[in-house]
Amino acid sequence: MKSYRKELWFSTDERVELINITPDVEKAVRESGIKEGLCLVNAMHITASVFINDDEKGLHEDYKEWLEKLAPHDPSMYRHNLTGEDNGDAHLKRQIMGREVVIAITDGKLDFGPWEQVFYGEFDGRRNKRVLIKIIGE
Amino acid sequence: MKSYRKELWFSTDERVELINITPDVEKAVRESGIKEGLCLVNAMHITASVFINDDEKGLHEDYKEWLEKLAPHDPSMYRHNLTGEDNGDAHLKRQIMGREVVIAITDGKLDFGPWEQVFYGEFDGRRNKRVLIKIIGE
Amino acid sequence: MKSYRKELWFSTDERVELINITPDVEKAVRESGIKEGLCLVNAMHITASVFINDDEKGLHEDYKEWLEKLAPHDPSMYRHNLTGEDNGDAHLKRQIMGREVVIAITDGKLDFGPWEQVFYGEFDGRRNKRVLIKIIGE
Repeated sequence: MKSYRKELWFSTDERVELINITPDVEKAVRESGIKEGLCLVNAMHITASVFINDDEKGLHEDYKEWLEKLAPHDPSMYRHNLTGEDNGDAHLKRQIMGREVVIAITDGKLDFGPWEQVFYGEFDGRRNKRVLIKIIGE
Repeated sequence: MKSYRKELWFSTDERVELINITPDVEKAVRESGIKEGLCLVNAMHITASVFINDDEKGLHEDYKEWLEKLAPHDPSMYRHNLTGEDNGDAHLKRQIMGREVVIAITDGKLDFGPWEQVFYGEFDGRRNKRVLIKIIGE
Repeated sequence: MKSYRKELWFSTDERVELINITPDVEKAVRESGIKEGLCLVNAMHITASVFINDDEKGLHEDYKEWLEKLAPHDPSMYRHNLTGEDNGDAHLKRQIMGREVVIAITDGKLDFGPWEQVFYGEFDGRRNKRVLIKIIGE
């Protein structure tokens, strides 16, 4: 069994951003030399997500608006913010969108359906944060 | 390390359907010959889910009603539908229910609790869509 | 390839509780002797979650309040409860928080960001329920 590890770093301009990281994940798979296995991609921070969906700008605006409705930013709404933070909402948004994805690797490639793309979902940005890629297989 | 790959195909009669695929996943595990490992089961389409819960009709109606409340179908609500689609809601519903499950394989079987069953969750059906099963182990 | 399996048992005092299980998962990783691989941690019951977030009391109260808003306990709201259950809400809450996490193991340790902690999320407690840890790697 082989394994491969890589970190991706992000510092977004906006508090909330959705970034297509598919090329970075594909690159890591090539670097790993693994042909058959599983690829874990996870946010290393608890106010961010990694998820798979469509790379369509309108949909991404829909996601942002929907998440804001389900878990509004308003810092006065969350006990967590009594610690001095203002990102209570980001911890909730991340649970809807998920921490991680696990992707099959087949024949040295991400084994994806026609529209699947991997995204980093940032809900409390404007500082350095990381994504972990861990690949195991042969 | 061994690996095994299989696709399941679906074309539902209704736009929204929840289908028990546990027997198909169990069959794939037997076909793989893998005794100890991990089994990834994921929707290959971005308006569908794979999730684990109870096979109880009332609960499934509850899920459908709840998801419709959290992300109503009404096509006029979503920017994504300006592309000509009418499935913006399905991209949101899928995020609640999740893209994938990872299941332990122990002694050649899905290592499940007493009520765990695997479901395909279709939120924009009536066309051919796929689920991927990828198993690695020994 | 090596594999390791362990169960954790819980019987909470309250219907809803969030319990930090990071030390238990770390212990299982040490017991496994696996240095590089993947660690699956999943609820074996369908009204409970395993998730990764922050160990901060205020945030946990925020989660409970938010989940109660998204899926209120009121047993009269759910068809599932016509079966004699009163836990319809717990099946919904668990979908928001997720069934499982997959964690990278690097150099014999959980490969975590600075604040990542693993939690058992109980939404229908006061009885014996289990979490499964399955580790594969080398």
